Amino acid sequence: MTKGTATRDTILLHATELASRVGLSGLTIGALADDLDLSKSGLFAHFGSKEALQTRVLDYAASEFIEAVVRPALHEPRGEPRLVALFERWLAWDRNGSFPGGCVFVAAASELDDRPGPVRDRLVELQREWLQVLAISFQKGIDAGRFKSDADPAQFAQDVHGVMLAFHHAGRLMADPEAESRARRAFNTLIAAARRTDLPSA
Amino acid sequence: MTKGTATRDTILLHATELASRVGLSGLTIGALADDLDLSKSGLFAHFGSKEALQTRVLDYAASEFIEAVVRPALHEPRGEPRLVALFERWLAWDRNGSFPGGCVFVAAASELDDRPGPVRDRLVELQREWLQVLAISFQKGIDAGRFKSDADPAQFAQDVHGVMLAFHHAGRLMADPEAESRARRAFNTLIAAARRTDLPSA
Repeated sequence: MTKGTATRDTILLHATELASRVGLSGLTIGALADDLDLSKSGLFAHFGSKEALQTRVLDYAASEFIEAVVRPALHEPRGEPRLVALFERWLAWDRNGSFPGGCVFVAAASELDDRPGPVRDRLVELQREWLQVLAISFQKGIDAGRFKSDADPAQFAQDVHGVMLAFHHAGRLMADPEAESRARRAFNTLIAAARRTDLPSA
Repeated sequence: MTKGTATRDTILLHATELASRVGLSGLTIGALADDLDLSKSGLFAHFGSKEALQTRVLDYAASEFIEAVVRPALHEPRGEPRLVALFERWLAWDRNGSFPGGCVFVAAASELDDRPGPVRDRLVELQREWLQVLAISFQKGIDAGRFKSDADPAQFAQDVHGVMLAFHHAGRLMADPEAESRARRAFNTLIAAARRTDLPSA
């Protein structure tokens, strides 16, 4: 890693932490310059615009998410074991507060849903990729003959996403000690409903 | 309704619409004064502080929510019909954009979850009341012998809340035309799983 890369990653990590606290819309080049004690003109020369900074932060958070959640789960066998790994790693990502103000994507989704522009467009792409990871992993369970052939991967992806969003709400806002065990129960119910019942048990 | 009440309600409606667009944290007395072309000192004398204004907006949105979603559903028979009415009215509330920037509570939940203070405290109370409406309505279905006696009302409330949050995300951010039909299917699956299977069908 060159010195330039390290510095850029340090700035992006800091910017992502700042966005997780103040919201993506609050992440301006001026706010980041204040926070890092760097010159605003230097940061402006580097990023070009507030929207470019915000988009880079989304991409940075997405690459962290892929390293922490998606890539390790791909080492698990296709179908149910991989889905369990994705879910458990997502819970850990949200619970352990990868960034101080909580999941950047959950916050950005309700912040940007009514603000058209390049940052919202990038968020939609990244969220679509994540929902597709869930749907494709489910489809592989169907292809392998473990899940019912008429189960709907897009339905499963939206349902699991709901389990995650409700966990985020119950855990972070409501500080409900049962939030995680309920989320795990809901996930297990979705998986159990998808399993073929005509197979001999292992 | 006296003139004073009408004016106060007009200001609160406007403040709630503003909060739905810029976020609850962006709703300051100065921003509201600019938007309404009223004096900042007059609004300050009326509300007292930014936090009091934000709390009043949450209470105002909650009273609108109760009139649009909760109260009409209470006219339905206890148990499943009431739960269906609560769910359908919630979908309509979210879909029709009761406020221009979308549901104030969904946005406030991710905005305030890491910001301790009186506004967050009030939001938590209001969200707890809503989750309890769902859980108590479900409990009445158990009491009436229609749902399984070992079903868990708090689990149902968190699960239905997840269905709603995923619908909000898929509909508003992702503009997914299937968002609502999937939400309805997920809700029906939760209800079907709760029904007693040892009763003669009607």
